[in-house]
Amino acid sequence: MTKITAGASVSIDGYISGPDESGFEHLFAWYGNGDITIETADPDLPLNVTEPSAAHIRAMIDDTGCFVVGRHLFDITNGWGGKHTLGIPYVVLTHSVPDGWERSTEWYEFVTTGLEDAIAAARRRAGDKNVGLNGGTIVSQALEAGLVDEIDVDLVPVILGGGRPFFRPLEHGPYLLEGPISSVQGNRVTHLRYRVRK
Amino acid sequence: MTKITAGASVSIDGYISGPDESGFEHLFAWYGNGDITIETADPDLPLNVTEPSAAHIRAMIDDTGCFVVGRHLFDITNGWGGKHTLGIPYVVLTHSVPDGWERSTEWYEFVTTGLEDAIAAARRRAGDKNVGLNGGTIVSQALEAGLVDEIDVDLVPVILGGGRPFFRPLEHGPYLLEGPISSVQGNRVTHLRYRVRK
Repeated sequence: MTKITAGASVSIDGYISGPDESGFEHLFAWYGNGDITIETADPDLPLNVTEPSAAHIRAMIDDTGCFVVGRHLFDITNGWGGKHTLGIPYVVLTHSVPDGWERSTEWYEFVTTGLEDAIAAARRRAGDKNVGLNGGTIVSQALEAGLVDEIDVDLVPVILGGGRPFFRPLEHGPYLLEGPISSVQGNRVTHLRYRVRK
Repeated sequence: MTKITAGASVSIDGYISGPDESGFEHLFAWYGNGDITIETADPDLPLNVTEPSAAHIRAMIDDTGCFVVGRHLFDITNGWGGKHTLGIPYVVLTHSVPDGWERSTEWYEFVTTGLEDAIAAARRRAGDKNVGLNGGTIVSQALEAGLVDEIDVDLVPVILGGGRPFFRPLEHGPYLLEGPISSVQGNRVTHLRYRVRK
């Protein structure tokens, strides 16, 4: 059954990027500090991770049928050049289709009618697999809409001191979680998985 | 040798209290959801924790010679009635000594001349033991002053959606940590200890 999962590399103080889009070299150090190579859709960008992180990533890749990303993440990655680095289709939640991009291909799709429609589109692409939410704004929105089943925190030992938080100030809450239902230690990352209590 | 440690029960989104001082029943649930009783200085307030959390707390109590707390924490606990619940002396960093309190006793002391003096006073009381910093503002201040050696995060599976963050927006940074050098799973808490890279 499809689960909606939200995940990110997060600093100890809760940020998914530091001030002025800084800090990625720390947040994503664990993608490059191990000796297990995981090929990606971009031959120039393999991951080099520790064995525990490799098992964690492989399971995530196997289980995920589609991502939903926000426009900000799409813009800073330039849409991964049209195909997500992990070879998983993605749906972009946006106000408008950016210039020069088709509305929908085999590998991506723009949805301009809101988060619930974006998640529905991702569910159609995911089949029996999971839908993964990336990016702070949509994760918080989806949590408040009761749409998030699991949260994957890749907790990184750095204090960024500011930036974009994984979770935005919420209208409602608190939201209780169960777990960690899984805890895996990599090199400069602790992979923690929680279930959202419904 | 005395280490300066900073610790708190922290939500997944980084808060040490929720909006309008809410959320403590979630942040401190782990103080009461186990079957090991730890007596405190207040006979009406024993802790009831799991065995892993009990070992974690006992080691912290044994290793800590003095706390430094901010005025906010002092006020909301009413200074623990003049003696900290864990039976450990504390130094309060404040602008002025509150009415009705002596400046200094066997169990507490007010310091009005800044954080460095407060930590120096706590070091004198701590002897060879550690100084523990509690409260968001002084932890962030001490981190920026290069005075924090270790950070203890008691990570609680709840998203509070707002409130007082453990780490405030910082002037400088990022601050890299080492670890977790210790990771202990309790009931509704993950005790994570990090060393601050100097």
